[in-house]
Amino acid sequence: MNRITEHNLKGIAASPGIAIARAVLLESEEYIPEKAQVASAEQETARFRAAVEDAKAQIESIRESTEQKLGKEKAEIFEGHLMLLEDPELIDAVIDLIEGDSVNAEYALYEVSQSFIVMLSELEDETLRARATDIRDIRGRIMNSLRGVKGGDLGQLQEECVIIARDLTPSDTAQLNLDAVRGFITEIGSRTSHSAIMARSLDVPAIVGVGEGISAIQSGDLIVMDATEGKVWISPDADALAAFQTKKAVYDKRKAELAAWVNKPSVSEDGHRVELAANIGNLEDVQKALDNGAEGIGLFRTEFLYMGRATLPTEEEQFQSYKYVLEKMEGKPVVIRTLDIGGDKELPYMDLPKESNPFLGQRALRLCLANEELFRTQLRALLRASRFGNLKIMFPMIAVREELLEAKRILEEEKQSLIQAGAEVSDSIEIGMMIEIPSAAISADLFAPHVDFFSIGTNDLIQYTMAADRMNETVSYLYQPSHPSILRLIRMVIEAARQEGKWVGMCGEMAGDPNAVPLLLGLGLHEFSMSAGTILQTREMIGNLSYAKWQSHAKHALTLGGQREVQSYAQEQLQGGKQS
Amino acid sequence: MNRITEHNLKGIAASPGIAIARAVLLESEEYIPEKAQVASAEQETARFRAAVEDAKAQIESIRESTEQKLGKEKAEIFEGHLMLLEDPELIDAVIDLIEGDSVNAEYALYEVSQSFIVMLSELEDETLRARATDIRDIRGRIMNSLRGVKGGDLGQLQEECVIIARDLTPSDTAQLNLDAVRGFITEIGSRTSHSAIMARSLDVPAIVGVGEGISAIQSGDLIVMDATEGKVWISPDADALAAFQTKKAVYDKRKAELAAWVNKPSVSEDGHRVELAANIGNLEDVQKALDNGAEGIGLFRTEFLYMGRATLPTEEEQFQSYKYVLEKMEGKPVVIRTLDIGGDKELPYMDLPKESNPFLGQRALRLCLANEELFRTQLRALLRASRFGNLKIMFPMIAVREELLEAKRILEEEKQSLIQAGAEVSDSIEIGMMIEIPSAAISADLFAPHVDFFSIGTNDLIQYTMAADRMNETVSYLYQPSHPSILRLIRMVIEAARQEGKWVGMCGEMAGDPNAVPLLLGLGLHEFSMSAGTILQTREMIGNLSYAKWQSHAKHALTLGGQREVQSYAQEQLQGGKQS
Repeated sequence: MNRITEHNLKGIAASPGIAIARAVLLESEEYIPEKAQVASAEQETARFRAAVEDAKAQIESIRESTEQKLGKEKAEIFEGHLMLLEDPELIDAVIDLIEGDSVNAEYALYEVSQSFIVMLSELEDETLRARATDIRDIRGRIMNSLRGVKGGDLGQLQEECVIIARDLTPSDTAQLNLDAVRGFITEIGSRTSHSAIMARSLDVPAIVGVGEGISAIQSGDLIVMDATEGKVWISPDADALAAFQTKKAVYDKRKAELAAWVNKPSVSEDGHRVELAANIGNLEDVQKALDNGAEGIGLFRTEFLYMGRATLPTEEEQFQSYKYVLEKMEGKPVVIRTLDIGGDKELPYMDLPKESNPFLGQRALRLCLANEELFRTQLRALLRASRFGNLKIMFPMIAVREELLEAKRILEEEKQSLIQAGAEVSDSIEIGMMIEIPSAAISADLFAPHVDFFSIGTNDLIQYTMAADRMNETVSYLYQPSHPSILRLIRMVIEAARQEGKWVGMCGEMAGDPNAVPLLLGLGLHEFSMSAGTILQTREMIGNLSYAKWQSHAKHALTLGGQREVQSYAQEQLQGGKQS
Repeated sequence: MNRITEHNLKGIAASPGIAIARAVLLESEEYIPEKAQVASAEQETARFRAAVEDAKAQIESIRESTEQKLGKEKAEIFEGHLMLLEDPELIDAVIDLIEGDSVNAEYALYEVSQSFIVMLSELEDETLRARATDIRDIRGRIMNSLRGVKGGDLGQLQEECVIIARDLTPSDTAQLNLDAVRGFITEIGSRTSHSAIMARSLDVPAIVGVGEGISAIQSGDLIVMDATEGKVWISPDADALAAFQTKKAVYDKRKAELAAWVNKPSVSEDGHRVELAANIGNLEDVQKALDNGAEGIGLFRTEFLYMGRATLPTEEEQFQSYKYVLEKMEGKPVVIRTLDIGGDKELPYMDLPKESNPFLGQRALRLCLANEELFRTQLRALLRASRFGNLKIMFPMIAVREELLEAKRILEEEKQSLIQAGAEVSDSIEIGMMIEIPSAAISADLFAPHVDFFSIGTNDLIQYTMAADRMNETVSYLYQPSHPSILRLIRMVIEAARQEGKWVGMCGEMAGDPNAVPLLLGLGLHEFSMSAGTILQTREMIGNLSYAKWQSHAKHALTLGGQREVQSYAQEQLQGGKQS
């Protein structure tokens, strides 16, 4: 039997897939120019300006080809680069240095940009750190133009290869010749760096942030990268290689099988229709949701609009984001959750008080009701965006009915005032609430007449029902999605909604957990919202399940003694089902 | 109409009641001796020893009279004093100073004791701080004897008075002439200082820790003290005084009415019997429970054994405490809860890790199962004490059945090993669990076959069900005991227990809350455990309720929209009931 040996390097799985190919090392040695005096600062400045224009032309051309290949949003990175090339803080500072000290343009460019790069690289904020890579990218381009050097063109690569680099700039990534490049591995970077985002869009396996160990890879080494797990093997022996090839074949076959489900409906074997939606946390995720066959957005987390910045987002900024997602989803349902922040998720500019138990503190809607202007701004942005698609507004962290009624009252007030001001607001916005606090689940019947839908947030619901912080390792064993207590709460919610003719979704991790999906189907859950990457396998699974059988299996599961018993019972039924 | 003016001083209500009488100031000026050389250190040592013996004799006599008046435990304070008089750290140190420096005994005594007093007074721990008062007490006694001064004898007071003092030593308190002393007010002290404890035993109103403002009181001032609220008025005008006299008359009448319920059973108007028990947190509370007609101890919090000390309590120390309570309760049920510590309640000597959400962390049984030796020590102490009364062992913070079964397995192991070692263990110990985590309430039917009883811990249950830290002011509005979600959970627990023929108690604050008691009765709660001071009024209230009617009222309350609706409904029924 073939064996897979211990991996040699481990990094962050930034874009999934398995690749086996020879390494091509991208030179990361940067050109560090010597300082030299120039006779005419004026001529030197002109030379610098010409190089900047040259860089602009190159970037514009990459931007266009990226837009054709990957669409408008991906190309936006390069609009950022073009803006940097006009940024006076950078460009004028270089010119000032050339003119003030009569130094060569290469030196001035390097010095000025380096101070930005060093400063940005040291910041906590990932978005700002990524700017350092952008500056490095355009600096390289201007520098090559100044020096008359042709940059290594990744589009020229012909042989199948895995690219090894310190970091890939967005323009490097955009120029990859996809016919040849099987994957890439970088020393630095994170899941949210530009190149990782691009890799996911290009569907190229990528492992980033491998660290200094990357220097063990030589050009021409045979590389196996498993970007589903972030592991890298260098020159594996023949046995291991054969094992990897089998693994890759299985992976690729599986991927193709799943792709066949993209445009199919989500229907059980016996014809019971449900909806599989995606959870999204930023604008990039929308395309991924569509690519994975999402029938809607079941949870749009709006926190990203508020985080990693110095002030609250304006109504207009929010409006643009909501409009973007609604339009992009073309009439498919989009459930947008109002701000869920506070406690552990901090907003430095809001100066929230430190709490002893932030998970039991002033979070989400509690915070919004206490900071009404913050809340009203978001609601106005949502209402104004409503006419661009199929918007559903969802309130998080509700424990008692008064909170729901108050949130609805404020929403209605804002709606009326917008209408009076002449704004167009959809008149078919559904209003729903998260069920993530035990009280709300236990008294779901009291809420049901006042909402259009419920969405069960299992991550928090489980945490509160078990009184166990799931981030706390000593008690994380109590995070038991299939415990009868949790299943019973879910049933109460579905039952209460059914009585009032309302629908119930779920947007916690449980909705995409293969251990839970059959039971949730059997309990009558209508909408399953999960990370996009899990949708297709869930659709396939549901396609093989009998709704009628799982209705009765789920009923039985509610009576079992604990999660272990429920899981083995469900497992038995799944296996029995296949045999029969 | 008479009016009650703004109070003049506010302190800690250490022992309840209302008193109106003239102030008698106890001189608190301490005698500070001059340093003097003595010719014969030997003679001086002998003089000191004689004074110590004299003090011993005095204390022994006070101890005896206290034992006669107040019982054995109250007299134990004076055994502490006798031990201090034999403590070499104190007594030998004084003699060393006399002999080493040839100084007078008064000076040596003052110097040595003062260093202890200063050191102890600065400690955080209340118990240790109280030792400072004890040392001051015996020092005064020895000093008086050395100086041939007769101490002010509080037993001599003849006129009705309120005693005003910096602090009352335990012996001052014990000597109070109860025929004359109507109450006392001190500048320093806390609810748990010896004198506060004695005041409660003596049933004398006491307000302690009033602060420097106490100097506003002159000997002979007419004082009104309301020790139910900790407020003091100095020389009120005639109108206010009349109002106070009315208030005192109402209070005293009410107290007498309630006293009539001490030996009555807890039975509803229509003959439904329940049990009213007391929650206790230390050994002192047991007497208070009995004095207030407790039919048992519904919750013995064992944390006091572990806190305010430098090491874990030994098995023997614990055994003595459990035995004491069991014997004192003379066969009445005593539910002892195993250690509920961790997270917010810290034990410095255990070095528990800091948690982000301690209320959702490794608390109570979770901690015990992870620190088995700690748990087994307590279980052995409990098992050994079991033969001295009617012991019931209760496990806290259980979320899933595996935890209960594991705790029971360990208990059984310890029981068998004690029996094999020849120890006598009761074979009728009931085993129960707290219901304070939503999961346990929702799946109470899964636990019921494995326990003898449940006790609902509403403080935590409400907190988790509402996902709101009740210590956090911004969300404390969500602490809603009468919310339908909470009532439904209580009903689930009672229903599950009834199916298995088990009993259900409640040991959270809700059990003594007059807003909740009628509903709890109606839901079929069997045992109500509360602070001793609330028992009599609850017994009286239940005596006036119809169980049959409240069964149907409670059923209706479960369907109402929120706590506000439940409370007004219950209020209406209470008022309607009185009219009909």
